[in-house]
Amino acid sequence: MKLRLGLDIGGTTVHGIAVTAEEPHDLVREATHPTRKGAEGVVGSALDMVAALRSGLPADAEVLSIGLGVPGIVHAGAVTHAINLGLDGDPLDLAGAVSAGADGIPTAVENDVKAATLGGLQWLRDQGSDIDDLALLNVGTGIAAGLLLDGRLRHGSRGMAGEIGHLVHDPTGPLCPCGRRGCLELYASGSGVRRQWAGTAAELFEAADSGNLDAARIRDELTSGIAQAISLLAYSVDVSCVLVTGGVVSATPALRNAILAELRNAESTSLGRLAGIAERVRWLPAGHPAGALGAALLGAEDEEVRPWRS
Amino acid sequence: MKLRLGLDIGGTTVHGIAVTAEEPHDLVREATHPTRKGAEGVVGSALDMVAALRSGLPADAEVLSIGLGVPGIVHAGAVTHAINLGLDGDPLDLAGAVSAGADGIPTAVENDVKAATLGGLQWLRDQGSDIDDLALLNVGTGIAAGLLLDGRLRHGSRGMAGEIGHLVHDPTGPLCPCGRRGCLELYASGSGVRRQWAGTAAELFEAADSGNLDAARIRDELTSGIAQAISLLAYSVDVSCVLVTGGVVSATPALRNAILAELRNAESTSLGRLAGIAERVRWLPAGHPAGALGAALLGAEDEEVRPWRS
Repeated sequence: MKLRLGLDIGGTTVHGIAVTAEEPHDLVREATHPTRKGAEGVVGSALDMVAALRSGLPADAEVLSIGLGVPGIVHAGAVTHAINLGLDGDPLDLAGAVSAGADGIPTAVENDVKAATLGGLQWLRDQGSDIDDLALLNVGTGIAAGLLLDGRLRHGSRGMAGEIGHLVHDPTGPLCPCGRRGCLELYASGSGVRRQWAGTAAELFEAADSGNLDAARIRDELTSGIAQAISLLAYSVDVSCVLVTGGVVSATPALRNAILAELRNAESTSLGRLAGIAERVRWLPAGHPAGALGAALLGAEDEEVRPWRS
Repeated sequence: MKLRLGLDIGGTTVHGIAVTAEEPHDLVREATHPTRKGAEGVVGSALDMVAALRSGLPADAEVLSIGLGVPGIVHAGAVTHAINLGLDGDPLDLAGAVSAGADGIPTAVENDVKAATLGGLQWLRDQGSDIDDLALLNVGTGIAAGLLLDGRLRHGSRGMAGEIGHLVHDPTGPLCPCGRRGCLELYASGSGVRRQWAGTAAELFEAADSGNLDAARIRDELTSGIAQAISLLAYSVDVSCVLVTGGVVSATPALRNAILAELRNAESTSLGRLAGIAERVRWLPAGHPAGALGAALLGAEDEEVRPWRS
């Protein structure tokens, strides 16, 4: 039995899975552990997860690869700017450290949203879709996209492809923790809602519908910001599909409807009709393990064994 | 002598060149004609130009290909939404019509900015650069980009990759001819300046420096809009190089300096320093025939004979 391990290393939790090496990549084992911070902590957390996944595997199991998704910039194999992991100093060779501590199993590391894009692609394939050109838009604590263009994950010249969260959305807007004003992430993300609203996104929509003007403004900014992110992906790289994921979107049907309504409204223009952005949008189901699955598929990506990588 | 013809078909003028088929693509002939509008007019204008370029060529000259750049959306070989050419109805098989009228010479058509991106790449190569990953940002009547990602021209699922001019820049802004409010093109383009300022861009900068507050606002919006477009390209596809072209930029050194200053200002943040956007910017020299040259290179692109297309 040939397996791949995938670890989605978040700021709070490491989510790890073991899947069969070939499609349909059946789930064999799954675990979650808390994340420890800093270089030593992150490497230790990852190795603990690898050990947990490997323990109790069938005797004939062979782990072909380990893949790691991390919330940071990954460039030339090194992790930087992973603030939520306490890694924002020297670039860290996380894959090298994990491989060294895991019997030399080939290990790859990628930005978590880019890795999740491979997981999103697998979900589309599981649905019978042959799309191989998509953006996965993750609306989580922040907002960022992963780009799979003509079947290839777009890394970018500095590993920053899809990092749209700190594009300026409103130059007169509030100060962002990044030091600039009005970044997209301040409006179109879970943290953007939380900084202005104490309840859930569903409660935000209810309050807005009941006439709460503050709630209506926050709702509209959230909706417009996500619609803007989707439009930006459609007009910059013109992907066939924008697959949207993230807690605030998954948990709030009214938000999904509002986003689609705003995108359809833009189809009143000739260019908007040609673009047909609303029809490109898909929603990744809540609970789909795209992050960990995509991390596991990084190994297959590196070996170029994926059939659509011909 | 093997040649390729390239036609940059603008709303006013067709610019045509004949270049040698292989690098360095020496210029053999060049001409400009006025553009006639509508399907029949555009096809006729293109065929007149092809005839003009072919007349008087050496007896041993062989035209391998014709390439056409047009200001519109080109998808599945058909031209749509080319409003400045009077083509916004049924999709037009422009390449087929031109080839049929030109002894069956293989003919390709592409959006003008995408074609110009190949011309911009050739300019970088002429400078000794080995960059094969770039965006050409054209600040003309409108604003749009062409993307060459890892050596391949990105067309996009609907031929709209790089069409960033009608992304909403300010939802409270003025009405755009497209029917929406505050499109990027209203601020960051030649037409955006002209709708608000009667003189040249250089005069705009002089007036702003002399304390004219309207001029200062228009200048700042122009600067910020172009800087935003460059940032958007860096954070969406993360290209190595953004090559900026267009009359208003070429003719106004103060604008180029202001754009770079704004981009450098964004490097005060940790993410901004990692992104290093200002250092990715190059300016295509005024008068470089990137549009027609890139159109001529479409033929080579189709044959996949270009050395970096391995």
